Amino acid sequence: MERSFEPPQRILMGPGPSDVSPRVLAAMARPTIGHLDPAFVELMTEVKSLLQYAFRTKNQLTIPISGPGTAGMEACIANLVEPGDSVLVCVNGVFGGRMATMAERMGGVVHRIESPWGEPIDLAQLEDALKKHPKTKAIAFVHAETSTGARSDARGIASLAHRYGTLTIADTVTSLGGIPLEVDEWSLDAVYSGTQKCLSCTPGLSPVTISERALSAIRARTHPVVSWFLDFGLVMSYWGEGQKRTYHHTAPVNAIYALHEALLVLREEGLEKAWARHQLNHEAFRAGLAAMGLELLVHADHRLPQLNAVRIPADVEDAIVRRAMLYDFGIEIGGGLGDLTGKIWRIGLMGFASNPRNVYRCLSALAACMRSSKHVSTADEGLAAAKAVYVAASRA
Amino acid sequence: MERSFEPPQRILMGPGPSDVSPRVLAAMARPTIGHLDPAFVELMTEVKSLLQYAFRTKNQLTIPISGPGTAGMEACIANLVEPGDSVLVCVNGVFGGRMATMAERMGGVVHRIESPWGEPIDLAQLEDALKKHPKTKAIAFVHAETSTGARSDARGIASLAHRYGTLTIADTVTSLGGIPLEVDEWSLDAVYSGTQKCLSCTPGLSPVTISERALSAIRARTHPVVSWFLDFGLVMSYWGEGQKRTYHHTAPVNAIYALHEALLVLREEGLEKAWARHQLNHEAFRAGLAAMGLELLVHADHRLPQLNAVRIPADVEDAIVRRAMLYDFGIEIGGGLGDLTGKIWRIGLMGFASNPRNVYRCLSALAACMRSSKHVSTADEGLAAAKAVYVAASRA
Repeated sequence: MERSFEPPQRILMGPGPSDVSPRVLAAMARPTIGHLDPAFVELMTEVKSLLQYAFRTKNQLTIPISGPGTAGMEACIANLVEPGDSVLVCVNGVFGGRMATMAERMGGVVHRIESPWGEPIDLAQLEDALKKHPKTKAIAFVHAETSTGARSDARGIASLAHRYGTLTIADTVTSLGGIPLEVDEWSLDAVYSGTQKCLSCTPGLSPVTISERALSAIRARTHPVVSWFLDFGLVMSYWGEGQKRTYHHTAPVNAIYALHEALLVLREEGLEKAWARHQLNHEAFRAGLAAMGLELLVHADHRLPQLNAVRIPADVEDAIVRRAMLYDFGIEIGGGLGDLTGKIWRIGLMGFASNPRNVYRCLSALAACMRSSKHVSTADEGLAAAKAVYVAASRA
Repeated sequence: MERSFEPPQRILMGPGPSDVSPRVLAAMARPTIGHLDPAFVELMTEVKSLLQYAFRTKNQLTIPISGPGTAGMEACIANLVEPGDSVLVCVNGVFGGRMATMAERMGGVVHRIESPWGEPIDLAQLEDALKKHPKTKAIAFVHAETSTGARSDARGIASLAHRYGTLTIADTVTSLGGIPLEVDEWSLDAVYSGTQKCLSCTPGLSPVTISERALSAIRARTHPVVSWFLDFGLVMSYWGEGQKRTYHHTAPVNAIYALHEALLVLREEGLEKAWARHQLNHEAFRAGLAAMGLELLVHADHRLPQLNAVRIPADVEDAIVRRAMLYDFGIEIGGGLGDLTGKIWRIGLMGFASNPRNVYRCLSALAACMRSSKHVSTADEGLAAAKAVYVAASRA
């Protein structure tokens, strides 16, 4: 007979979900109220405004989609890509590839711009493709590739898009709240994210923000959006202004409580401070790894501070280390995907989990779990190197 | 500056969400673990088996879709309806209409079979349509119309479908856990539900179960499913057997904790007992309403015990009463939709909220809020009539 589920104690340092703040968990457990209750409608308004803060945008259509990041991705693509539309999709990891597949399924004519995994999107290559396909409706790209830990130049891509008169669809699942993201300043058009990365909220919602340009393109569609569930025109009538809301679907009420609280936590800290914290903990962690003889996959210029792709030394068995990390130390780290399986670990320092404690815990646990490797020294040097980064920062 | 959200105290007696058990809220607030954590994978297996219990099925593909009931509806339609497929959609309320729209957007050739709102689907009319459209791939229908409170004969529809060699797509959002639903015995094919009605779980997930016949039809598709997010072939590889799961999207971990607990609560009570409880509380409520001079929209043969569509007396103002119910008594009841706006209230007695306390509370609050009406007596007779039903039941 099944019993109530008591989750094992974990520290979530994989590619997401990240550790959720007790404040967010407590918010999630408050009693459910109706999705048309005036008090809930007020909460929705606050969530919209807090999301505008997080995305740095004034876009009216800034809401959480009632599904995971993948639903947000599909929402943006389904609304912007009509059958026959030409779409350039930048692929430098799993999630770019997923965008391309989705755009094809929606009837788009997809041109893939491939960059090696672990590298950012190549702007010169993108510009060539824009010249070759002058009728491109949208460029789709991933700001922070969760599968590799590489950051692409979202501002540069958006600027190219404007020069060539195309829209942008940006995956910011792992970037929102962790590194600078300026939706309005960079003029991004259809932007989606997730709650379970640097917002440190429970997984299940996908914040999206849609520019006026993108809305005009959606209004000019000649085919209805194939997904009724994700049709922005319908979703907006529920998330619209004022007390009058048209029923579309039942909002995941408690998940919205949680997102509201996670966004409050972010605003109390301040976006810039959150970005700086992610950067500092990354630097300490990187220094510690280096002192222990461990290298990162991504070049320093393009590294995501919130997601470290660590090369697995040749004499170390991926699965054994990850299992020991999980069962002996209660620390979850992620494995590689696709060609990177067995070659990297993906170690997240995201949101609530981006703190010195976790840096020290992870370095010492890694050293213990890799004791058999010739390449790895003890944790002592790693911990000292990480500490030195914090000390230097505190003096600065 | 926004503050943490403290929801007002409510008793949820609308068309859903229903009151969530404190056990379920507590489960939801347990610390998030990774969606690929072995402990979570075990939990997924338990959730599948508990859903099989609730649906009365052995279908292997019995899982919660990571979105609200509307996402489950779209998943079933997107996977079963290919462009050009002929689909008969039974429409006797809002949700049948929604299924028709979705099937059209997926490229289906939709024939609507309309029945008046508040009445069940007419089997003779359905059979005529099956004769007229012999190449029908699927019949789509709503078992329990949340917009009207009418129950349709799901077994009869499924039996017609088999006689004419078509599949069935069944909306059981409001029926699952509240009235008999026998997926295997009736041979239903693609069945979706919601968590926030008679399961008394938080809203946000959509349990689905898919028969082998439906899976064969999906495997025989000539076009890929247009929705990557809802493609059962991909979703199954994540929810499949054993420890090996292919990553598809990040599961809403805490929502799955909540669903697991809600299903445990259901199994501890027992499905038949839950059905009987919904029936008894409905009978007491109906007796109370009748004694107070209030009538139901739906004929006794087709009434849903979990959702009572109460006719609003001519001299009573819908909005004023609902507002007083909400603000003075903290009781949420639902208004009518479409043509029934202002004509009915939808009063739910669902899941955890289906209990004598709520019957008494609602009857007395309704009487107080309608005191100005000539048609409504005091609550005294209503409460006595309800009590008489409980007393008779306890003696039986």
